[in-house]
Amino acid sequence: MTGQSKPLVISVPEPRTLDLIFTPGQKQVLFDRYEVVETGASGVAALPNHILARAKYILGQPPISEQTLEKLGQLRCVLNVESNLIDNMPYERLFQRGIYVLTTGAVFAEPVAELGLGLALDLFRGITNGDNDFRHGKERWGGEGNASARLLSGAEVGIIGFGDLGRALNRLLSGFRAKIKVFDPWLPASLLADNNVTPASLEEVLSQSDVVFVVASVTTENEGFLGGESFRSMRKGAAFVLLSRADVVDFEALMAAVVKGHIVAASDVFPEEPLASDHPVRELKGFLRSAHRAGALDIAFKRMGDMVLEDMNLMDRGLPPMRCKRAERETVSRMRSRPVDKN
Amino acid sequence: MTGQSKPLVISVPEPRTLDLIFTPGQKQVLFDRYEVVETGASGVAALPNHILARAKYILGQPPISEQTLEKLGQLRCVLNVESNLIDNMPYERLFQRGIYVLTTGAVFAEPVAELGLGLALDLFRGITNGDNDFRHGKERWGGEGNASARLLSGAEVGIIGFGDLGRALNRLLSGFRAKIKVFDPWLPASLLADNNVTPASLEEVLSQSDVVFVVASVTTENEGFLGGESFRSMRKGAAFVLLSRADVVDFEALMAAVVKGHIVAASDVFPEEPLASDHPVRELKGFLRSAHRAGALDIAFKRMGDMVLEDMNLMDRGLPPMRCKRAERETVSRMRSRPVDKN
Amino acid sequence: MTGQSKPLVISVPEPRTLDLIFTPGQKQVLFDRYEVVETGASGVAALPNHILARAKYILGQPPISEQTLEKLGQLRCVLNVESNLIDNMPYERLFQRGIYVLTTGAVFAEPVAELGLGLALDLFRGITNGDNDFRHGKERWGGEGNASARLLSGAEVGIIGFGDLGRALNRLLSGFRAKIKVFDPWLPASLLADNNVTPASLEEVLSQSDVVFVVASVTTENEGFLGGESFRSMRKGAAFVLLSRADVVDFEALMAAVVKGHIVAASDVFPEEPLASDHPVRELKGFLRSAHRAGALDIAFKRMGDMVLEDMNLMDRGLPPMRCKRAERETVSRMRSRPVDKN
Amino acid sequence: MTGQSKPLVISVPEPRTLDLIFTPGQKQVLFDRYEVVETGASGVAALPNHILARAKYILGQPPISEQTLEKLGQLRCVLNVESNLIDNMPYERLFQRGIYVLTTGAVFAEPVAELGLGLALDLFRGITNGDNDFRHGKERWGGEGNASARLLSGAEVGIIGFGDLGRALNRLLSGFRAKIKVFDPWLPASLLADNNVTPASLEEVLSQSDVVFVVASVTTENEGFLGGESFRSMRKGAAFVLLSRADVVDFEALMAAVVKGHIVAASDVFPEEPLASDHPVRELKGFLRSAHRAGALDIAFKRMGDMVLEDMNLMDRGLPPMRCKRAERETVSRMRSRPVDKN
Repeated sequence: MTGQSKPLVISVPEPRTLDLIFTPGQKQVLFDRYEVVETGASGVAALPNHILARAKYILGQPPISEQTLEKLGQLRCVLNVESNLIDNMPYERLFQRGIYVLTTGAVFAEPVAELGLGLALDLFRGITNGDNDFRHGKERWGGEGNASARLLSGAEVGIIGFGDLGRALNRLLSGFRAKIKVFDPWLPASLLADNNVTPASLEEVLSQSDVVFVVASVTTENEGFLGGESFRSMRKGAAFVLLSRADVVDFEALMAAVVKGHIVAASDVFPEEPLASDHPVRELKGFLRSAHRAGALDIAFKRMGDMVLEDMNLMDRGLPPMRCKRAERETVSRMRSRPVDKN
Repeated sequence: MTGQSKPLVISVPEPRTLDLIFTPGQKQVLFDRYEVVETGASGVAALPNHILARAKYILGQPPISEQTLEKLGQLRCVLNVESNLIDNMPYERLFQRGIYVLTTGAVFAEPVAELGLGLALDLFRGITNGDNDFRHGKERWGGEGNASARLLSGAEVGIIGFGDLGRALNRLLSGFRAKIKVFDPWLPASLLADNNVTPASLEEVLSQSDVVFVVASVTTENEGFLGGESFRSMRKGAAFVLLSRADVVDFEALMAAVVKGHIVAASDVFPEEPLASDHPVRELKGFLRSAHRAGALDIAFKRMGDMVLEDMNLMDRGLPPMRCKRAERETVSRMRSRPVDKN
Repeated sequence: MTGQSKPLVISVPEPRTLDLIFTPGQKQVLFDRYEVVETGASGVAALPNHILARAKYILGQPPISEQTLEKLGQLRCVLNVESNLIDNMPYERLFQRGIYVLTTGAVFAEPVAELGLGLALDLFRGITNGDNDFRHGKERWGGEGNASARLLSGAEVGIIGFGDLGRALNRLLSGFRAKIKVFDPWLPASLLADNNVTPASLEEVLSQSDVVFVVASVTTENEGFLGGESFRSMRKGAAFVLLSRADVVDFEALMAAVVKGHIVAASDVFPEEPLASDHPVRELKGFLRSAHRAGALDIAFKRMGDMVLEDMNLMDRGLPPMRCKRAERETVSRMRSRPVDKN
Repeated sequence: MTGQSKPLVISVPEPRTLDLIFTPGQKQVLFDRYEVVETGASGVAALPNHILARAKYILGQPPISEQTLEKLGQLRCVLNVESNLIDNMPYERLFQRGIYVLTTGAVFAEPVAELGLGLALDLFRGITNGDNDFRHGKERWGGEGNASARLLSGAEVGIIGFGDLGRALNRLLSGFRAKIKVFDPWLPASLLADNNVTPASLEEVLSQSDVVFVVASVTTENEGFLGGESFRSMRKGAAFVLLSRADVVDFEALMAAVVKGHIVAASDVFPEEPLASDHPVRELKGFLRSAHRAGALDIAFKRMGDMVLEDMNLMDRGLPPMRCKRAERETVSRMRSRPVDKN
């Protein structure tokens, strides 16, 4: 294969970098297989017409105007190496032309699920508090320190949202013999049953669980859908673990429920990030804090590179992509999580 | 059934109490089905001969002399409601007469395994440290806080000891696709293979694992068998989670390995309990502390009551006990964990 | 909801019927929720323009001309209630307009996988032959009848093709601790690894398996790709189970390999169906025959109705379909299994 | 180690042979590790006193008198390489002395479970009948041949008896999402729950299952416990699979239920074996026959050798045996399956 005949990739992965998402070996594969034209997000429109005309893939989600898109005559796929979709390209026209728009957010499912399980076990057993007491010579030994300790094995577990992350969590829980109820209005009941979880209403999930994991993405429709009444409906002493986006929750109401001692909670996401240094959640007892660290593991970013290479390889061979998630006409406009400005 | 004809139970559960190990409902069942004679550990020998002669079960492990045992002509089983065996009765004579000696330590397997998994996830993701940083306004957001974060999914996991606890841990890990190696010199290789784990030498487990769980009981033979060389042979940055008894470890050497930054560690057990207020482990970075709280959950104690009632019911019907673990002639003298003085 | 406002469905399920694919209750749901216009395959073009203009769904895969398609201005989805795609509509234009083309073949995966497992166990244990011997008083008792008997537990299993059917088979095998190798050139390796199977070349699957299941669909590229050399490369005495389409196999070569005693085989599909009454496979020893009965269970057809209703419900709510499989631009032209003329 | 110091094994495995239960490699290990004295069942008593005095293990279950047992002063274990216990040795005295009596029947669990599953799939799908029809040119194609076909996936399954065999069956079914009910009066409910099956009464298992597997051993108490009323209580069209011993069933009543078309059945065991050539079950439609071939696979016999070597190795090291099943004081006298006279 001569250089000329290699498929052309326009690389604009910012805010990611190629070195973040590819191991050295994978990056070598990328450059061996493809002609890679690197530019900044604003630079795509300025690329020479003969480059645009030959581009088969775009790595990243730079702004693309209708006009530029017309020049991208061979474009097969936009691989946006993020979880979200910015409204900066004419999606409808892309879909008409059969150009795939792929997101790689699935790489975060496993890391986030593991942290979520860790947070839940911590809330159930007081791991962080126990260690702090121990450091300060105030630890209580044996059963005396376990007044509120609970088992996850056999517990009733609620999951709100059953995308990649909900499924990863369900998989991690498979050794716990938990009774898992799931609320996800976007999924048919039979698909939930196939995953051995019980479809349930939001009310059932909240009021009948020992721990509730929130892994639903923010959409135009569910902002702040978990508020004061939601938390009040939970079991006394139950645990609430927030893993997806802070915007699905009325954060003040969540804190109030914890202050009252009705529930305990853990969260990886916050209304503003970084958070004001005097935000009251910083000292809130019964609340476990994680600074949006659930997904951003090096191993997850490197899996993005894997996924991208696997799917481009499939498309090179005339097959549809299978690893990344495809943007859908129906949902592209509903998804509104903010772009990341930090990896 | 008249009161007379009920099987007689001598109840001496100390340091447990009947209320600790039975729910009110279970306790009712106990008193409905059996004639229960309650006494203290030292009181058994003083019981009237006609009581001793009719006793079918002893609940607890009080001292029993050869002489008293001769009077216990109908004795069928000692249910000791602990995990360990004290050398305070003529076991050989009990075995000759076919009297079962049962322990209920299996109830702790699940709670301990859950805490062990929670500690491992904490070490892998810095949950406790991250929350402390957050409280003090020093948190690092996103990938910046994840320099040493690792995934348990797909990791190489070592387990030392594969009794009830090792098996419970293996079950909890079933959703993690981990590669699990087990060292247990008391078990045949085929039994490990049946549990889908790989039999391995101690050296292999230590040197080829991302996390090592120690769940081996102390015996006369393995005191301090994990020392400085063991920790040095571990992978740089690997996690060591101690769950069974501090005596299997050279604790100074363990702390030294953590001080050096070679490994991180968590432990639920300590050389003395309670621990001196100035013990250096209290402030050791890279070490996560739990004050022997892994097993002592109320739900675990209540399961003891369940197990005891189920096994007495089997024996009432002329069947062998199946829930509690039987003491074995071969191992009774090797098991030497100290008696609990606290629940 | 008034009748007027119900979404309109054009129903042309032939060769299926509504009664085949819907239970009475489901059929009621269909008619309650939708305005259903029933016609024959050739009748679509003749429907009045005002009907065509309002049609949201087509149930079945009738011929649709470019011209008719233009009149179907609201068409959202063709649910073809089969596994295959006939080249009788302008797919490219459908895709441009974002009209889904859905197939329901996934309903057959579980029934076919179960039969496949049953055939494999029969070949491994001689169930059919043993029963025949027994009927004729020629049975051999105990170990004497087991000279060639083998276990599936722990065996090396090869699967060729890993679509819905391959995955269903993999799931059924999950209790067998089998070592499963899969050849599927359309799938990325990581997706196979996610399913806990080992990606392998065709040669490896054939030469290193105790049983090989063929569940690959016929495409324009793989007709007859399993021939004499393939069978010769298999282990002596291994089992070959053909479940998808006879056209992927050189059937003469397969029979020859069985005649020679090199392998044993079972098949649910044949070069012609029905098969000539004097076809030599009818009396071939070492060959187990099933008359294309693997998938056509009533319960499977009824699941089609379920899937159709679930996906129409999602689309009614502005969501993408999730139960049925979507035809893909890339693969629609490669799939060439013959239309069914019998359910 | 000199020959003198090797532990001494008296080998009387008849009706097995050492070559049946050991591979050449394993047999070599046996002779390398142990001093093996081979004799016939009747020859044990005649062995010189100095041999008897040194014997640590007996391989087989020869008759042993009280008198001979007294001479066997070092005897540690009788490994009987069968599933049953013959009443030909003073078990009570063996137990008093702490001599283990081990059976190796567990090796048959997996082979029997696999055949049982194969028989059930055959009854559900008509594999044997379909092949016979095909041979005779009377096959019916596709759905026409599937009027009574059923799926095992998601079915309600009953298991009667939950020893090694019931558990092996439960494991094989793990990929089928079946709802499994178990009747076993010898086991506590919690142990069944631990295996993810539902404890049930015999009546519930019979009347609420799509297929019933009988894997209970014959005891003094359950002979013929499944009779006409049992079969009448089953669901119309349900499948009955008999795998353990014919004596637990009223065989005439079973055949009558099949003749009537109320149930279909398969059996690996028969009232007499071999069976009279004119026995009516030979031609009974709706009945699938297997000539006691479920367990007697070479691989199972060779696993006996493995188990025996593993357990002797444990006992050599002063540990209790763990692979073979121990005879229990309580059950030894209840177990009464006839000795095998054929492997």
